[in-house]
Amino acid sequence: MNDAFPDIPKIQYEGPKSRNPLSFKHYNPDEIVGGKTMRSQMRFEFMDKLGVDYYCWHDRDVAPELATLAESNAAFDAVADELEKAQKQTGKKLLWGTACLFSHARYCQGAATSPNAGVFAYAAAQVKKAMDVTHRLGGEGYTFWGGREGYATLWNTNMKREIDHLARLLHMAVDYKKKIGFKGQFYIEPKPREPSTHQYDSDAAACLNFLREHNLLDHFKLNLETNHATLAGHTMRHEMQVAVAANALGSVDANTGDELIGWDTDQFPTNIYLTTEIMLEVLKMGGFTTGGLNFDAKCRRESFEPVDLFHAHIGGMDAFARGLKIAHAMIEDGRIDTFIKQRYSTFDSGIGAKIEKGEVGFAELEAHVLANGEPLLGSGRQEMMENLVNDYL
Amino acid sequence: MNDAFPDIPKIQYEGPKSRNPLSFKHYNPDEIVGGKTMRSQMRFEFMDKLGVDYYCWHDRDVAPELATLAESNAAFDAVADELEKAQKQTGKKLLWGTACLFSHARYCQGAATSPNAGVFAYAAAQVKKAMDVTHRLGGEGYTFWGGREGYATLWNTNMKREIDHLARLLHMAVDYKKKIGFKGQFYIEPKPREPSTHQYDSDAAACLNFLREHNLLDHFKLNLETNHATLAGHTMRHEMQVAVAANALGSVDANTGDELIGWDTDQFPTNIYLTTEIMLEVLKMGGFTTGGLNFDAKCRRESFEPVDLFHAHIGGMDAFARGLKIAHAMIEDGRIDTFIKQRYSTFDSGIGAKIEKGEVGFAELEAHVLANGEPLLGSGRQEMMENLVNDYL
Amino acid sequence: MNDAFPDIPKIQYEGPKSRNPLSFKHYNPDEIVGGKTMRSQMRFEFMDKLGVDYYCWHDRDVAPELATLAESNAAFDAVADELEKAQKQTGKKLLWGTACLFSHARYCQGAATSPNAGVFAYAAAQVKKAMDVTHRLGGEGYTFWGGREGYATLWNTNMKREIDHLARLLHMAVDYKKKIGFKGQFYIEPKPREPSTHQYDSDAAACLNFLREHNLLDHFKLNLETNHATLAGHTMRHEMQVAVAANALGSVDANTGDELIGWDTDQFPTNIYLTTEIMLEVLKMGGFTTGGLNFDAKCRRESFEPVDLFHAHIGGMDAFARGLKIAHAMIEDGRIDTFIKQRYSTFDSGIGAKIEKGEVGFAELEAHVLANGEPLLGSGRQEMMENLVNDYL
Amino acid sequence: MNDAFPDIPKIQYEGPKSRNPLSFKHYNPDEIVGGKTMRSQMRFEFMDKLGVDYYCWHDRDVAPELATLAESNAAFDAVADELEKAQKQTGKKLLWGTACLFSHARYCQGAATSPNAGVFAYAAAQVKKAMDVTHRLGGEGYTFWGGREGYATLWNTNMKREIDHLARLLHMAVDYKKKIGFKGQFYIEPKPREPSTHQYDSDAAACLNFLREHNLLDHFKLNLETNHATLAGHTMRHEMQVAVAANALGSVDANTGDELIGWDTDQFPTNIYLTTEIMLEVLKMGGFTTGGLNFDAKCRRESFEPVDLFHAHIGGMDAFARGLKIAHAMIEDGRIDTFIKQRYSTFDSGIGAKIEKGEVGFAELEAHVLANGEPLLGSGRQEMMENLVNDYL
Repeated sequence: MNDAFPDIPKIQYEGPKSRNPLSFKHYNPDEIVGGKTMRSQMRFEFMDKLGVDYYCWHDRDVAPELATLAESNAAFDAVADELEKAQKQTGKKLLWGTACLFSHARYCQGAATSPNAGVFAYAAAQVKKAMDVTHRLGGEGYTFWGGREGYATLWNTNMKREIDHLARLLHMAVDYKKKIGFKGQFYIEPKPREPSTHQYDSDAAACLNFLREHNLLDHFKLNLETNHATLAGHTMRHEMQVAVAANALGSVDANTGDELIGWDTDQFPTNIYLTTEIMLEVLKMGGFTTGGLNFDAKCRRESFEPVDLFHAHIGGMDAFARGLKIAHAMIEDGRIDTFIKQRYSTFDSGIGAKIEKGEVGFAELEAHVLANGEPLLGSGRQEMMENLVNDYL
Repeated sequence: MNDAFPDIPKIQYEGPKSRNPLSFKHYNPDEIVGGKTMRSQMRFEFMDKLGVDYYCWHDRDVAPELATLAESNAAFDAVADELEKAQKQTGKKLLWGTACLFSHARYCQGAATSPNAGVFAYAAAQVKKAMDVTHRLGGEGYTFWGGREGYATLWNTNMKREIDHLARLLHMAVDYKKKIGFKGQFYIEPKPREPSTHQYDSDAAACLNFLREHNLLDHFKLNLETNHATLAGHTMRHEMQVAVAANALGSVDANTGDELIGWDTDQFPTNIYLTTEIMLEVLKMGGFTTGGLNFDAKCRRESFEPVDLFHAHIGGMDAFARGLKIAHAMIEDGRIDTFIKQRYSTFDSGIGAKIEKGEVGFAELEAHVLANGEPLLGSGRQEMMENLVNDYL
Repeated sequence: MNDAFPDIPKIQYEGPKSRNPLSFKHYNPDEIVGGKTMRSQMRFEFMDKLGVDYYCWHDRDVAPELATLAESNAAFDAVADELEKAQKQTGKKLLWGTACLFSHARYCQGAATSPNAGVFAYAAAQVKKAMDVTHRLGGEGYTFWGGREGYATLWNTNMKREIDHLARLLHMAVDYKKKIGFKGQFYIEPKPREPSTHQYDSDAAACLNFLREHNLLDHFKLNLETNHATLAGHTMRHEMQVAVAANALGSVDANTGDELIGWDTDQFPTNIYLTTEIMLEVLKMGGFTTGGLNFDAKCRRESFEPVDLFHAHIGGMDAFARGLKIAHAMIEDGRIDTFIKQRYSTFDSGIGAKIEKGEVGFAELEAHVLANGEPLLGSGRQEMMENLVNDYL
Repeated sequence: MNDAFPDIPKIQYEGPKSRNPLSFKHYNPDEIVGGKTMRSQMRFEFMDKLGVDYYCWHDRDVAPELATLAESNAAFDAVADELEKAQKQTGKKLLWGTACLFSHARYCQGAATSPNAGVFAYAAAQVKKAMDVTHRLGGEGYTFWGGREGYATLWNTNMKREIDHLARLLHMAVDYKKKIGFKGQFYIEPKPREPSTHQYDSDAAACLNFLREHNLLDHFKLNLETNHATLAGHTMRHEMQVAVAANALGSVDANTGDELIGWDTDQFPTNIYLTTEIMLEVLKMGGFTTGGLNFDAKCRRESFEPVDLFHAHIGGMDAFARGLKIAHAMIEDGRIDTFIKQRYSTFDSGIGAKIEKGEVGFAELEAHVLANGEPLLGSGRQEMMENLVNDYL
């Protein structure tokens, strides 16, 4: 394979004191943190010079759209031949594949949610092909990002009918997956707006509600992205906990955004608080089983030199490595978990345990209050907890 | 009943040309619009001088909280005696009742989602009493607004446990409702933040997801409020369509807010576009069966004279009356509905109908595209539709 | 001149009852409103089929950027020859010209605020040429929109030095204007973010502060745009009043946006409340002297047919015509102005008049309070005023 | 002086490895950083147990509002006697005083910007008294926070007249300051909204524009607050640089907020990135001369025990101490400053230097481009710089 970046050496771990901006100061792939190597805790996606193991694509990232579906599919097959060879040669693996159902003008009013049945059919055919190629390349998952699945105005829209169509397409995908024997995980990626005025898959709760309503929850997990969470008015950690509670956290797009800006900036993450919170949730759910950390990020427009791509990935991977170590230290140390456990301890026995077990109703609880009077509430200690977080940095 | 506003005459309908600010220019309770009187289309909540039929309360609006639950309950009973008399005397009805689980300091960390089991018990006892009184007064519904059901920081919070507790309380309410034979509708009111940093019932989708997960969807409908919708990043109309699609739109808090401001301002609504959109959704779902339009609004701090309350309610009721007439005209005229129906017409027959019926999968759709080529998409005509809306104003 | 839209007839005024979507229902160019024709009150910018009188351009809208400045300038001269002929033939006039200092990659880190002096020089040369052509074509103004004049991060930025450079370029433009005898008005267009993370000209107050600090206020007026105002957290009317108070309102970009969305959508305006507020401020400042209403708007991506451009412009022009009539009626009727004048009447005489004239200080005012006690404040009557606004719709 | 917190020991510096939550881990008042003690770099405001040197008040924080101005003033004098004694006894100093012109109902429509001249007079009398007491107690400054200086709706407001009144009151204050010989610094605190819909002093640029227009810039500096900056759509660092560039940064309200929430939460700061950026700007302007770091913050509602106040202040002071050390290390190390200086180096000589000196105009710059062609722009290196920041943490 030719070297796209001949001037860039392979990036090495040199430790926190290194002054070399083209080195890792924290990401040390074979170092064990939390009982696993960093490599497996984070399952980063990028490329050879950075020493990571996975890559991802949209169909249209790797193969051009040609005049007809038949020609496009043929071109895609030719590229898949090359990808297959490259995977064998390098040992890199496909984290997930997906189709691009948002760039072509035919999708300007939606793909599965287009008002036009021919567009729906085209989207279905394109997903079919991308699933075929993902399957052939041993992809570990397949992601649905509904980049046009929303509306610009309700004055021209039948929202219910559009959402039913979206469920239809996903059921077809579930059927097709069984048919071809593809074992990878399906992901949906919530995003609240952009490019539509309103996207149907706006946040984790909206996705879960949709999946529950349409009997799809067994078949899909969520691929969460920080800036999508914040645009929806949530922290990334909130979205992760919502997904984990529904056993539906699949993968993480590990970029970030600017909370003062109203659109998705797809920046590389360097904020240690953010990476700590993300890795804490990953560790607490037992680590990634499917999915991993994918940088769906780009360098700023002002950073246009090849080396900027390396600064960006090094910074992001180091920030996650540091977040992993800090999160691991928090868990090992236990002060945070102990405080939280203690805070809910009135539910571990007595009337609280009965409430949780469903053994009491309104009458018993009224009697409890009449007998016991005003409850004694402890401080939430938010300030102490926030100070404690800084202890681990 | 004594007259709280001796200087204000009963407000009369005087028609659009009236220059009297203390008259209705559009709200004419017995005028038939869309086959019903305005009175029944809107089921407004306020008071005698405005000629409306319903009222609402939180327990603590009408009866004080005293030193113990027993004393508070006794005071509440005494007030209920008076309310019962007043209802008989005036013919006014109770649209819904509710308990205030957010003002007292004991609820500062949540009511059903407090980390303290004693607080949960107190909340349960208070809901029990408010349901008792609502039932006794013939209330047509009971509303849950989770004013403290959320968190301030995840660093001290077990979100999953808290949400499970919330579901527990609501199941107890369902059980208790059966036990006492209360037939009114239960409502939940979504709100994205405030007073907590994150409220669990943040928007319609989050509420529906929660209700589905915990098998509560049969027992609850949503009480939607415009400014809560916009704080969550949605239009009120979006939230209404989400609720209607799940057969869960129950009632509407007909206030409004300022989209440039980041908190709930509870203003009286005067924007005709907004009232038109709300009444359009109400008419399209076949009118209110339970619930109605409730002004959970207050005069601005700068408007502190009694007559301001009348200006506020007159303006809001007139704006809704005007919205009702405009929405009715849109439906009668049919141009909007015809355009939307036509826009999706490729799903009414052929391959589109097969997609909707689940008769085709990826293979058939790929074959369809290979045979038929690029679909022909029509313009979404957003600009024409927005112009058309102005035709009805 | 060839007809770019052969299927579209010239758009005619047909009055409010017309059902023809390709007619004006409110914009009637020669109708007199407020003592002037609508044509002169609004000075719309578009094209022949709509019967408007002005057009605008960026250099790069009309002439390509070629390999060198010399070639680009020659191409621009050739286009200017054609524009000059077309102006003579049609009688259309140039409202303003401007240069595009944001699309070319050289401007990715700013034009006047680039860290690179060569980029500053290129920007200056390009503005020089665009001013030359604007002058030659009899343009009535020249607009500066600092599309890259801001920063992405302060970690690599010297903000003070960049802003001083921006002032330097504008002073050069003022000097050059005198040198060539160009009499048109200079405009600056505030916008809070996008494409930069932070734009230096973020809102009207930021622009005025900059112009005052750098002694440029005599030479520039503001070109305000609704969605730029709302992205900065202000209403358009607020920004207009800020500009008018500094005698600096020059022109209006008459598009709109979606307040729930965090970026500039450049939509055509149809909200009658908005157009009423804009035209009220225009009428109150005595009408446009320079500038006018420019649709810096585009059809939605989903509206891709030529006729959509006509729907968009017709709807926008009709909405402004309606806003003009409503605003005029408000002024004629006088109830709003009378209320406001009355509200401040304590400043028209007595102690209030002395305050305004600067005749009293803290000692006299303390004595006044000691002698007069608590002041009697009247209600702000926001609700009544909002109802009154609806009376005129 | 009695001990308000008998259970809390005096808080000691115990270093970063301490596990005692009631100790400082980073704030060590007499440690020298950047050539000064931490104590003088930060000039913190709080109380004895924390070992800080300054305090602040609003008049109504320390003395009640009584039925008349005369009675209120007398009560204020009595409190001032006690404060004077306590200052002598403890050695604590008054950082600044101010009046509360926003809580009393008379100010519901503004104080200096009330439509009522009697309210203006009352505000003036109250400021006079608060300035008198500040002067008597040796206060080092006086802060104006215009908590009601804004509007709720433009439909009842004469914005220009109100802003002129505000300028009038501030000129009176300047005159009175001279009259009584008060030498302290005057501060204005920008805030974009809340409690009004629109505050006139919305951000640093709006305040500077106002001060310039009304010839007040020599007399006032800005007191900046992080959450006020972010509510206005700016970072705190941006606001600080805007103020420093105008030589108008006076003091800092060192609290923080939640960027996902639309109102001012007045939280204690613990984010090290934020405290680093603030202290970097403080160090770069040469340290505070007037003003200091004031915690205008409160514990969360859920943190209601006395010890929470200590956790909050300890965490905030430690976060600032850590930010000070990091910022100092960044300056000492010099890599950031060197990069920025290099980035603008084309302005240090040649054509760039001529541009900065005003020696060239459009003609010379056009000639420069024709002779030199396309400029060679370097990458902005945002990603590398963000990584570099993490090196210092």
